[in-house]
Amino acid sequence: MDDRYSNRRQREQSQREELLLDIALTIAKTEGLHKVSPGEIAKNAEYSRATIYKIWSSREDVLAACTIRSIEKQLTMYRHILPAWEHKDPVSVLVIFCLAYLWYIQHNPTLFNLSLIGRAEENLSACSPDIKQRLSDTEAELAHLVFQLAHTTSGSDEKHIADSINAMRAMLTGLGLFSNNITTSPWHEGITNQQTAHTIVQVLHGLGWDTTHIQINQLTTELHQQLEGLERTQP
Amino acid sequence: MDDRYSNRRQREQSQREELLLDIALTIAKTEGLHKVSPGEIAKNAEYSRATIYKIWSSREDVLAACTIRSIEKQLTMYRHILPAWEHKDPVSVLVIFCLAYLWYIQHNPTLFNLSLIGRAEENLSACSPDIKQRLSDTEAELAHLVFQLAHTTSGSDEKHIADSINAMRAMLTGLGLFSNNITTSPWHEGITNQQTAHTIVQVLHGLGWDTTHIQINQLTTELHQQLEGLERTQP
Repeated sequence: MDDRYSNRRQREQSQREELLLDIALTIAKTEGLHKVSPGEIAKNAEYSRATIYKIWSSREDVLAACTIRSIEKQLTMYRHILPAWEHKDPVSVLVIFCLAYLWYIQHNPTLFNLSLIGRAEENLSACSPDIKQRLSDTEAELAHLVFQLAHTTSGSDEKHIADSINAMRAMLTGLGLFSNNITTSPWHEGITNQQTAHTIVQVLHGLGWDTTHIQINQLTTELHQQLEGLERTQP
Repeated sequence: MDDRYSNRRQREQSQREELLLDIALTIAKTEGLHKVSPGEIAKNAEYSRATIYKIWSSREDVLAACTIRSIEKQLTMYRHILPAWEHKDPVSVLVIFCLAYLWYIQHNPTLFNLSLIGRAEENLSACSPDIKQRLSDTEAELAHLVFQLAHTTSGSDEKHIADSINAMRAMLTGLGLFSNNITTSPWHEGITNQQTAHTIVQVLHGLGWDTTHIQINQLTTELHQQLEGLERTQP
């Protein structure tokens, strides 16, 4: 087969998937997370059920695809913003990464919620092998990026850097989860992004990174300007 | 109405709900998280659809009920274990609370995953007001217990204690989430409970609590013995 043809097909396939995931997100937002399924997407798309089932054979696959998309969107964001911070010290760049992740969660609440369901063991065990492999590859890409960032810092003990990264990522995911879903919450009154940023620095310090030089208010302001600019240019 | 009769009715109702939630959990484990619904529960229960719909009018209500149950189970656990630690210093008790929460998540993975979906904004917005109120009350009870624990410690700055508790709880929830759902994970190789316990202490230290005196290995061992004993007596 002609390579150009195969590339075009791949691009078309990926654009189609993108479009269908947008529909999945709208369904989740307006009708509830559990309504997302190939059948429900078909009702709202201009494609036939057969076309959609060729992409995702089950609801589990759609949810795993949401997880993949969530990670890909994060990767795109990090790759856009991080080069501008290269002149900064490594710990500041790590803080920027943390703040950007939190910003991402807060600006994509439904995709984030779907991504958590998609990566749950009960969902993955029923996924098709293909999509499971893609998810695994995409997660590995993100893990690689984060470990690279962390390894440029000398603050945290090398042996325990994986634990520290896990704890950091766990806290950010939890903070995002709580800040997105606050209807019944008696916990989060008065939590602002500025306070959260301070807390992140405290936690990184506890985990062994030297954060004494971090100018958190300035970093937060500059990052948010950068991210808002990015959002305007990439709707 | 006779008070005894009303109490008995209430107890029966609550036992029935407990039984139906067990069925919901089995469905989630064997058929997937999204299969949980009043209709599916009815297929597996000895009650009529009408009886079940009287308890939960929608799938969203079932999921919120899972969140309530998850919190209630945690509360029961804390109330059982914490009295044995009263002679300890307050920061050790806070660490015990953290470790117990993580233990709970790891021993109830499906209930925990369901509880996250149940408390998602997209789910709560479609819940009946009754069940939303119950969830709110139960969460407030847990928050009260945790804030009480935290206030007995003098380590963390009073003004920022709510932020510190949020960060701590977020990290634990995230750690639980990641350790439960590891199929595709390139992050968590080699993470053990012992390492996690050390990380928790580091994070609490970063958040302002004085943890220099904490004997984490001993605390972990004693707590796990206590929890395993508890599990044997309360199946």
